[in-house]
Amino acid sequence: MADKEDLKLLGLQLSPFVIRVCMALTMKGVSFEYVEEDLNNKSELLLKSNPVHKKVPVLIHNGKPICESLVILQYVDELFAGRSILPADPFERATARFWAAYVDDKLFPAWYGMVKAQAEEERAEKVKETLAAIEKMEVAFAKCSGNGNAAFFGGDSIGYVDIVLGSFLFWFEAVRRVDGLEIIDASKTPLLAAWAERFGGSVEAKEVVPVPEADLAVQYINKFRAPAIDAAKLASSE
Amino acid sequence: MADKEDLKLLGLQLSPFVIRVCMALTMKGVSFEYVEEDLNNKSELLLKSNPVHKKVPVLIHNGKPICESLVILQYVDELFAGRSILPADPFERATARFWAAYVDDKLFPAWYGMVKAQAEEERAEKVKETLAAIEKMEVAFAKCSGNGNAAFFGGDSIGYVDIVLGSFLFWFEAVRRVDGLEIIDASKTPLLAAWAERFGGSVEAKEVVPVPEADLAVQYINKFRAPAIDAAKLASSE
Repeated sequence: MADKEDLKLLGLQLSPFVIRVCMALTMKGVSFEYVEEDLNNKSELLLKSNPVHKKVPVLIHNGKPICESLVILQYVDELFAGRSILPADPFERATARFWAAYVDDKLFPAWYGMVKAQAEEERAEKVKETLAAIEKMEVAFAKCSGNGNAAFFGGDSIGYVDIVLGSFLFWFEAVRRVDGLEIIDASKTPLLAAWAERFGGSVEAKEVVPVPEADLAVQYINKFRAPAIDAAKLASSE
Repeated sequence: MADKEDLKLLGLQLSPFVIRVCMALTMKGVSFEYVEEDLNNKSELLLKSNPVHKKVPVLIHNGKPICESLVILQYVDELFAGRSILPADPFERATARFWAAYVDDKLFPAWYGMVKAQAEEERAEKVKETLAAIEKMEVAFAKCSGNGNAAFFGGDSIGYVDIVLGSFLFWFEAVRRVDGLEIIDASKTPLLAAWAERFGGSVEAKEVVPVPEADLAVQYINKFRAPAIDAAKLASSE
């Protein structure tokens, strides 16, 4: 690949899905133009680039749009040299794809349902689902890391599943501050708690998720809980 | 890869998700042992191999289980020589992954909701969603094929999106027979209708989806509509 690429990322500051793409591009050492979208007034470029879902992130590479964060991560990994995001071994790649899909198909809907729940009963149900999904991720981490012998899902360095799950950590911190709920609780999921510490402290995470994001996420959660605010706003990212 | 591989596929005759894997393995010219599961009495091997979802398909390769049909297709493509399933070009790969995810995340839930709907109003809503998703696939096919200049999503030969969408065609035929609904209607989605003809007539499809499958699918739909039957049975595959 040529060094000079025209890369534009349509994003949203608090979207975990966007953060994933920022992290992947940063890990590859690729520079890109970041364009913040206003989901109440989506740009023509967003609507034209992702007419199917009308959501961020969209990576526009030399004029061609790529949508959906997991698709973008694989695209970035296949296209640019530098540190690999997915493992090289086919079985390990399959395992990483399985867990990434699990995060998006099971953990995210449960967690998002919990954040936006207005009724206590609904919230309790979603908390249960979220914690059950996190327990599965503890088992996944135990397997992927050889019971914690490796630092990350990706081995000694951050990889695909780390990025996919790690993109939610500042939101989990916001939930802890607002509701006092430890989604990743060291007493229940000790390996994952240690992983989260390492991930949060990594150069890769610090570069793309500055500390104030959790403060902003707290404000968002409080807004979700206020009935007058459109709770579907976050859902308008992926 | 060595020619001699120990490949076992845990499947279910009428599951589109299983048919995908059969088709991919057949396209690669790889022989495998097929084991039909009984979803009312799941085997120990299935429960052990896919403890997270407990669903078919599971491909067990030299003792290692790979789950989720899209993950398995990519695994098979990466591991075995022979015809490529995903395109070689990174942007085309990203596009294929985008549409495969669309089929599973949008088209499948709408279609499945339609098949199992007991109430007419719910069914009408799901029919609408299904047809809207099919219209998107018409646009996708137009783009991927250069307005029908190529025969398949994958170009001149069957590829990833062809397998993913094509695995539903015999079910669409069953819906046509039971409800008289043309899901892929030549007057509304002409390119996709021509594609479906070509796909259904291909050696690849005929090898893995014999004609009687649609007859069996008809029986299943009629069973779904009978209240005493557990409508969740199909959902126990992916």
